[in-house]
Amino acid sequence: LVSVLSSAIIVYRLPWTWKCSKLLMKFIHAGLNTIAMILAIVSMVAVFEFHNARNIPNMYSLHSWIGLTAVIFYSLQLFLGFAVFLLPFAPVPLRAALMPIHVYSGLTIFATVIATALMGITEKLIFSLKNPAYSASPPEATFVNCLGLLLVIFGALILWMASRSHWKRPPEENAKVLRPIGGTPEGTEAESTMTDGSNADKSDLRINSEAARKQNLKLDEAGQRSTM
Amino acid sequence: LVSVLSSAIIVYRLPWTWKCSKLLMKFIHAGLNTIAMILAIVSMVAVFEFHNARNIPNMYSLHSWIGLTAVIFYSLQLFLGFAVFLLPFAPVPLRAALMPIHVYSGLTIFATVIATALMGITEKLIFSLKNPAYSASPPEATFVNCLGLLLVIFGALILWMASRSHWKRPPEENAKVLRPIGGTPEGTEAESTMTDGSNADKSDLRINSEAARKQNLKLDEAGQRSTM
Repeated sequence: LVSVLSSAIIVYRLPWTWKCSKLLMKFIHAGLNTIAMILAIVSMVAVFEFHNARNIPNMYSLHSWIGLTAVIFYSLQLFLGFAVFLLPFAPVPLRAALMPIHVYSGLTIFATVIATALMGITEKLIFSLKNPAYSASPPEATFVNCLGLLLVIFGALILWMASRSHWKRPPEENAKVLRPIGGTPEGTEAESTMTDGSNADKSDLRINSEAARKQNLKLDEAGQRSTM
Repeated sequence: LVSVLSSAIIVYRLPWTWKCSKLLMKFIHAGLNTIAMILAIVSMVAVFEFHNARNIPNMYSLHSWIGLTAVIFYSLQLFLGFAVFLLPFAPVPLRAALMPIHVYSGLTIFATVIATALMGITEKLIFSLKNPAYSASPPEATFVNCLGLLLVIFGALILWMASRSHWKRPPEENAKVLRPIGGTPEGTEAESTMTDGSNADKSDLRINSEAARKQNLKLDEAGQRSTM
């Protein structure tokens, strides 16, 4: 689930996809999120059936409260994203106004899902490890703790990728050309308002001279201005 | 701890502080973070003493692992922030290059601290509520779950405030004047590279006409371009 969510988040951030059409990328983003939603629903049904089969009460823990909140906001996000950004009816100013909220909600829901997973792992370790107990640090406990730590590192990496302006998909018209330094071309499509004027694909630049290095630093400053 | 951390994060985001000097605000930001660090250390010592007094093993849980990781990164962040941004020795390009990393690390550490708190709450509820158990949803459980949910909402609000470009402190030279719409003045101080050219203090604008409303929307688009 977390991995599908992550792919959905960073799908616009992969430079090799910038040559694909915006619509195709939107379909992939929406499709991956739909898969993640289905996985979330399937796993919630599994939890309720597991609880009912074992006579464990439902929805008593903080894990379940925050998890359910995240799923509700996620379905809202999915529905609004579909209605506004995928269907062709929403006017450009509305798309432009909602995009920063869509991005913020998406990343916040992602972080909340990771926090929920960490609480779930904590619960599971406490309830399942009895002899030896979790507090005796049996190998399983250490192993699962490592997985939890990796989950945090993974989440942090995804948030880093999603918040770097130079990993943003360039506006449609300029997708294939490296724009002049300091220029601020404006895209006409709504989504391009998320992209500032200086996110040239620096991954292809090979800088050798000192002057070029400084130029690149300036580019970096400009690219990361107002990021996060 | 979380509230001190949050104040430290949003201290540059309060429009009424924009008339104070940058250096004063930096001292407040650094001071609040130092207080938070002291609180974190005091509470860790308290936890270790509590564990030792009750013969509970230390550092076995995922909560403790992630919490310790967060504190280590936090002290690194504090030290680097002090050395680079507060002491007058670091050159402007270095400050400019490190600022996006400083902002990203700060917000990621903040989110990790909230996740750690949620895991800690989960552990405490499971271990402390015995008769009736956590799973029987006694009033304490419901109350503390609500606190946990509020913590998530609070964290999400802080992240929202910290990532809106129009709540950014304007560059030093322009702190007191409302810049012309569409203008992109550049600050000379390193930190101003974090601020894009269109974050005029819109909180003071009172828009009545339709034309002005559209103008403002355009300003908003520009202000939120490349945010998050």
